[in-house]
Amino acid sequence: MAIVMALNAGSSSLKFQLIEMPAETEIAAGVIDRIGLESSTMTVKFDGNKHKAGITALDHGEALKAALQAFLDLNIIPAFDVIVAVGHRVVQGADRYKGATLVTDAVIADIEDLAELAPLHNRANALGMRAVMELLPGVPQVAVFDTAFHQSIPAKNYLYALPYKYYEEFGIRKYGYHGTSVQFVSSEAAKAIDKPFEEAKVIVAHLGAGSSVTAVDHGKSLDTSMGMSPVAGLMMATRVGDIDPSVTYFLQEKTGMSNEEVVRMMNKESGWYGVSEISEDMREIEDTMNTNPRAMLTMEMFAERAISYVGSFMAKLNGADVIAFSGGVGENSPIVREMIMRQFKYMGIEIDEEVNNATHGKLKRISTDASTVPVYVVPTNEELAIVRDTYRLTK
Amino acid sequence: MAIVMALNAGSSSLKFQLIEMPAETEIAAGVIDRIGLESSTMTVKFDGNKHKAGITALDHGEALKAALQAFLDLNIIPAFDVIVAVGHRVVQGADRYKGATLVTDAVIADIEDLAELAPLHNRANALGMRAVMELLPGVPQVAVFDTAFHQSIPAKNYLYALPYKYYEEFGIRKYGYHGTSVQFVSSEAAKAIDKPFEEAKVIVAHLGAGSSVTAVDHGKSLDTSMGMSPVAGLMMATRVGDIDPSVTYFLQEKTGMSNEEVVRMMNKESGWYGVSEISEDMREIEDTMNTNPRAMLTMEMFAERAISYVGSFMAKLNGADVIAFSGGVGENSPIVREMIMRQFKYMGIEIDEEVNNATHGKLKRISTDASTVPVYVVPTNEELAIVRDTYRLTK
Repeated sequence: MAIVMALNAGSSSLKFQLIEMPAETEIAAGVIDRIGLESSTMTVKFDGNKHKAGITALDHGEALKAALQAFLDLNIIPAFDVIVAVGHRVVQGADRYKGATLVTDAVIADIEDLAELAPLHNRANALGMRAVMELLPGVPQVAVFDTAFHQSIPAKNYLYALPYKYYEEFGIRKYGYHGTSVQFVSSEAAKAIDKPFEEAKVIVAHLGAGSSVTAVDHGKSLDTSMGMSPVAGLMMATRVGDIDPSVTYFLQEKTGMSNEEVVRMMNKESGWYGVSEISEDMREIEDTMNTNPRAMLTMEMFAERAISYVGSFMAKLNGADVIAFSGGVGENSPIVREMIMRQFKYMGIEIDEEVNNATHGKLKRISTDASTVPVYVVPTNEELAIVRDTYRLTK
Repeated sequence: MAIVMALNAGSSSLKFQLIEMPAETEIAAGVIDRIGLESSTMTVKFDGNKHKAGITALDHGEALKAALQAFLDLNIIPAFDVIVAVGHRVVQGADRYKGATLVTDAVIADIEDLAELAPLHNRANALGMRAVMELLPGVPQVAVFDTAFHQSIPAKNYLYALPYKYYEEFGIRKYGYHGTSVQFVSSEAAKAIDKPFEEAKVIVAHLGAGSSVTAVDHGKSLDTSMGMSPVAGLMMATRVGDIDPSVTYFLQEKTGMSNEEVVRMMNKESGWYGVSEISEDMREIEDTMNTNPRAMLTMEMFAERAISYVGSFMAKLNGADVIAFSGGVGENSPIVREMIMRQFKYMGIEIDEEVNNATHGKLKRISTDASTVPVYVVPTNEELAIVRDTYRLTK
């Protein structure tokens, strides 16, 4: 039995998955929420069962310890030594990491060093790695970076039109996120149209609480909607996406808000939630769109920005071979997919309404046979992508 | 003789033009620079002559006075009473003005009131209007707003995904600029393809020191690249255009720059100038693009952002009937036009290389007969547009 564990540390959560390799069989998956608070919750799904428990986890190390103990207690694994490797999703690798890498002390130091670009996530990642070193000594670890797939983006697309010195001095540039997921989804989409990934032009619309659109050109990221931070690009659950950069300074003059408050507001109080004043859950907004004008406006704004990026990347790619919808909303909202794709009728893209309406969370072509560009729903599986990279680097 | 004078007040300049109506004959045109400094310069072109003089103009009123005196001294007009109306280009009318309007004391007060949205321009406009009242008493004046044409933009496109209250409380939304020019150019483009303006879908790429792309749908602005301020959207001579809105806050942490310094930097030190470190003049950058890699990068970045917006608006319009290039760069740079349009081959747009290379500053189709969407160079004439509106409202 060779099991690879995937870990995905959020600011106050830890997602984990156990996958048996090389068969890629999911053994268990779960999440620990509210890390750092007085009482945390652990949920583990395995073998058709769902186990939920209150635990104490004051940091990501304690959370991991609790999860490992649960694996034994619930007879998910016979002993720790079946875990042959651990893969970590790391948000920010900047331009230092162009692919997954074996974790060493130097890599952990780098990840901590880059925390200023992704404060909440990178520190949690480093803590998780140190905890694995302690709890599973000798087990190799791999860091899989959200930014790595986007390192192929050319300078003309990753530079901002700021004075050049700010790029040189502070590394201010677009890094892009969701890379692990986008790589997985775009290669699955290429497979679906029987085209080698290295030859395909793919547009991936990863739509969810965090949303991005990426242009993948011959297997490489050409451009993506997120920027130096994950706040840029599309409208998201609570993130503002693209705005006129002078707007926030005008707002500060009006309100006296501090820089910190503005950044927090752009990350936590904007997006679907800020405009709708209903919810940060797209399902709740969708449910009321026909009765609540603000819900409809929110849906339209969200769709409009996705239309913008798909249209923009269609041109940057000079045409696409396939368009893929993924992420919680992309996989499960026929309305959102339809609102976006109806704007591409001019180039002969045609959605099969019936198929689209019936497609939720599974790999499926939702365009008609006549559509000039096939459109697919492609469920993402970030954990599997992490485990594949981890297994490849450690076996 | 019925002459309409068009006035275009910049922060420290005043452009003027005298046009005889209804024949639309240009009688004279000129500019006064360095207003407010110790010595200003006035240039007047008329009847094939160019007159240049040093003058004193400590404000826009004194500048206007000097221009009027020159009209008499140079025998351009026999007396002031041939000036039947004055039209002003006003940058910011926000959502209060959906078209040109006769100037009254209330209108001037509004324009001053809206100065917080366009500090440098609106105050100069108000000064200019008061000066005309004094120097040409009884002559009717018209305010032609840069924002008015964009008032048709729907909420889904003009709202930012900020908390909704900021729109309600402070009017934070996209206003868009270049409207007078875009309306002129898009209607000329519709005429060129023999389609009624009210039925045409037009994309206008107004490229110059200030650059914007606009989608015009059935005679109305549907969306535009500039935002609440003119700093958003494309990369411009010294303006940054779109950036991740958290970038400037990161920069402030690194450098200690004040909010004011950041806004100044985004407006005055970025764009072509900031990236190239060569010039804010596109011609100088173009001249060195084959020998200086930074010049090439600047050209590519500029083109890439225009490609983005044209692609985005192609989708928002669900296809276009015509694409029009205008503005100093759009009318005069075959290379820039080619760099942008080559990315639309996927949809059958085809530029005629020879015609494109030979077209500078004149109305001309630059696409081949086979091109699925015709592409034109359409010289803008903002002054003529202002004079037409002014004449219409005052005759």
